This record gives sequence, structure tokens and C-alpha cells, in this order.
Amino acid sequence: KEHLNLTCHVVRRQQKQIHDLRAQLDTLSINMDGKLLWKITDYASRFAKSKLEDEYELRSPVFATSRNGYRLQVSAFPNGNGSGEGTHLSIYIRTVSGENDSLLRWPFIHPISFTLLDQAEDGLKPSHVKECFTPDPTWKNFQRPSRDVYTLGYGYPTFVSHVFLKTKNYIKDDTLFIKVEVDCSKINNII
Amino acid sequence: KEHLNLTCHVVRRQQKQIHDLRAQLDTLSINMDGKLLWKITDYASRFAKSKLEDEYELRSPVFATSRNGYRLQVSAFPNGNGSGEGTHLSIYIRTVSGENDSLLRWPFIHPISFTLLDQAEDGLKPSHVKECFTPDPTWKNFQRPSRDVYTLGYGYPTFVSHVFLKTKNYIKDDTLFIKVEVDCSKINNII
Amino acid sequence: KEHLNLTCHVVRRQQKQIHDLRAQLDTLSINMDGKLLWKITDYASRFAKSKLEDEYELRSPVFATSRNGYRLQVSAFPNGNGSGEGTHLSIYIRTVSGENDSLLRWPFIHPISFTLLDQAEDGLKPSHVKECFTPDPTWKNFQRPSRDVYTLGYGYPTFVSHVFLKTKNYIKDDTLFIKVEVDCSKINNII
Repeated sequence: KEHLNLTCHVVRRQQKQIHDLRAQLDTLSINMDGKLLWKITDYASRFAKSKLEDEYELRSPVFATSRNGYRLQVSAFPNGNGSGEGTHLSIYIRTVSGENDSLLRWPFIHPISFTLLDQAEDGLKPSHVKECFTPDPTWKNFQRPSRDVYTLGYGYPTFVSHVFLKTKNYIKDDTLFIKVEVDCSKINNII
Repeated sequence: KEHLNLTCHVVRRQQKQIHDLRAQLDTLSINMDGKLLWKITDYASRFAKSKLEDEYELRSPVFATSRNGYRLQVSAFPNGNGSGEGTHLSIYIRTVSGENDSLLRWPFIHPISFTLLDQAEDGLKPSHVKECFTPDPTWKNFQRPSRDVYTLGYGYPTFVSHVFLKTKNYIKDDTLFIKVEVDCSKINNII
Repeated sequence: KEHLNLTCHVVRRQQKQIHDLRAQLDTLSINMDGKLLWKITDYASRFAKSKLEDEYELRSPVFATSRNGYRLQVSAFPNGNGSGEGTHLSIYIRTVSGENDSLLRWPFIHPISFTLLDQAEDGLKPSHVKECFTPDPTWKNFQRPSRDVYTLGYGYPTFVSHVFLKTKNYIKDDTLFIKVEVDCSKINNII
């Protein structure tokens, strides 16, 4: 009986250790070069789900402009929202709060690009689709982020149409790739 | 009874696996670009502790000049030591032993800077405090490090005074940031 | 009894969590700059084993040309194979399959170098040994890799002789270092 209690105690402690390892690992897994290659697998089933659930939103891993820089996250709506609802894949990006927000300049004003990648066969020139924008300092979306307030961010309700997405090799093996890039050249490099 | 013994055995094995994961994760967490942003939280209580305990030393995470490069660690004494005792925050840096010391050139002779960061409000120009030095080849501190011998390293007993530290936003939300940078431009890049 | 069953259940769940953490950590541990510093410890015993077992092969960690780039792995045969059998250390490299192979251009045609590092004493100029090659597009070795087919890759059956390896400080503390570098300058940077 005592033996069992002791074992139980060790198991509970291990559960906490595993939890801590996961948190540290997730932080380490963040891309830190202002680039995100977002691989969306099982696209057909996600698209079907998106048609059924109005608010169905896919969220990318968080990525950062540098080790201690801005943190960002992308959202995709396979069946579209706003002006793209039912016809387009919509895509948005927002800043999320990080460890060093007090050292960063706000609002976030650096250019961002979204690229839908064409998984072209060997020998064929891939035909990627790219959209860029530069956040305006007056936009609410890119102010110093708060942990409590959720914003959709800025983006493209009509990024690419469902019809267009079926052309080329944008979807291959039921998988789609979206590349997101932040132009970090004007970010103050003190941190 | 047998069932319990078996479970016990699995739990012991898991403890070792968790320990190994932690070690690998800690190695991976090391900054490898010659830069360290050291965030010191709960500064008030650390400062109070430093006033009571003479030898109270804060140690930064180890960081490296490249993936396989030199490893360094910073120490801070909130209440000061040496000529700064009781009046200044003292700060030091030393080389620590790593996996590839046999491939590196010794002594370590590359310029190092310490910067106390000002967490200025949006719109205000931050007023950081920076000190630099280049290790002299004759110094004992930057010879090939040994695992057994502890050295304090080189640094500034009077880095910033306690009075000065209360100005601007050097401390904000009870948190202080110190940036450490190694000039890696002259490090032989064979490894 | 019930208590034991519950504990057992938790332990089984933890085993899966530990396994997942290991997999994620291994992915994160991959070098992503087209460079590998391969440290081979316990060389004497590995060499002895290689003399006894014909197929004894050391495999390096997998490394990548960029976060989402090509993945490669090096093999070494301490007692040699092919034309180097019994007299040389043989070394080979091959592409291995990764997450983003459908976005990469194939075959792999980028220059690769192997360097045996001299762990020279302080003050002595190290005398490293370097071999380079550029894969030919017609070679089978560097086509799009498959998860099922194993290829030895391309390399040097007579990289360095056993006699030569005993000179200088190529082996020090029973440890040998091989540096592998891919020239990534011509790799399309869309991903």
C-alpha cells in the first residue's frame, strides 16, 4: 500500500516534468527568422468541415521575426469568411504577445507577404501566388498585443478562389503549403 | 504485487527518459549566435536577497558564439561586489567548457559588450547603457576552460549604480534586461 | 486494486507523451544551415568493431540545408569498404526524405565538401584535410529520395588511410571530427 502511494507520487511528479518539457520544447520550436512555411495536411476534410462550421478557423504555429522579436500567427478559413465566404480561401495574420514585448517598438509596421506554393513536378517552373502588404501605423490590428483580446488580424478574405486552388499543384497529396514572410530589414536590432 | 513491481519498473525507466530529454533540450536551448538577451525577473526580491547574502550571484543561461563555438556565461551581483559592493550592480563574463573545445583557438580574444536595456514607452527614444572590452591574450580568465576550476571572469564591478538603475525604464514590471554580444567577425569559421 | 489500475493507465499515457517529446526534440536537433560537425567518440573501439564486422557503418545525425530544405546523412566505414577496404576510412553522403520534398527541386545538384579536422594544440596551425565534389544530375544517388529504398550515397572509399589518420591530431582523446558542408548559395530560397 505504501509502495503504491510512493509510486503514485513519483508518477504525479513526472506528469509535471513532462508538462514543463513540452512548454519549453514548444517555445524552442518557434521559427525565429521571420519566415513561416505552413503545411496544411488533410485539406479535403478540413475544407468539408469549414463548409459545415461557420467559424472554423485553422491557426498556424506562432513564429517570430528573431529570437527575441515580434511574434505572429496566421489564420486560414478554407471556406472563406467576409467577402470570400463560400468562394475563397481567406487568410489573416496578427501579432501575438511574447516575452519581450516591452523592448519592442509598437505598432508593428513591417511588410508581410503571403505566398501560396505550387508543388510543381520536377522540370516544370512552379507558379506561386504572392500577396504583400505593409501595416499602417493607424491600424488597430498591429498595436502592442494583449494576452486577453483576440483580433483576427489583417489579411485577404479573397486570397485565392476555390476554383483556382484546384489548378496546378497547389494541392498535392491532399496537402497545401503557405509561405509567410516578414521583411525584417527595418527592425531595430538592439534585441 | 507483481503488477505493482512492473509498474514501478516502468516508472523508474521513465524517470531516466525524462532526465535525458531535459539534458538534450537544455543543450538545444542555448543561443548560438554570440548574443544573449538576459531577462531578470523579480528584481526587487533578488536585490533584497543580494543585500543579505554576500556571495549571492545570478548566473545567465550559457550561450555560444556559433553552434559549435565558444560557450560563455554571465554573472550578476545585484548588490555589487569588489569596488561596487553596496552601491552598484556588478557584471562579469567567463568562458565555460563545451563539446568542441579541442577544435577552438585559445585564449578567447573576441570583443564583448554588455548593454543595459531601457524599456522605453512607445514613442520615446530608449537610452541604453553599453560597455565594451576586448580580452587581452595574457588574461587568465579566457584561457581554455576547465570543468573543475571556477573563475569569476572579467567584467565591471561598477557596471551601473543602484541610483542610476532606478531612472528611466531600466526596471519595468520588476524586470531588467541585459544584452550581451560577442563580436564573432574574427572567429575562424572552420567549425 | 483500482488505484493500481489507474496509476498504470497514467503511466502508459506518460510513455506515449515521452515518445512524442523525443520525436519532436529529434526534429528540432537537426542542423539547418547545410553544415554538420560530426564528432565520433570512442574511435578505437569502433575501428576494432569495423575490422570484425564487414558491414559496420556509422551514420551521422541527419542535417538540412535550411529549415525546410534538403535533408542529408553521412556514413563512415572506419575499416573502409570498396577500394578502401582494410586500408582507409571510407565516407559517403546521401539525401534522405523530409517533410517538404514536394517543394524541392530534384535531383540534388549542390556542391558538398568533407573535411577531416586537425585538433591542433594551441599555437600550431591546424592541417585539415578537405575533399569536394558536385553531384552530377545523372547520378542515381541524388534523385528525390524514397522512404523505402536505401542508397549508400556518393563519397570517397579512400577518404584517408589508416596510417595517415594516426598523424597530427586527427584523433585526440579517442575522438575524431568530420565537418560536412553543402554550398547552399544556388538553392532556390522560396522555401
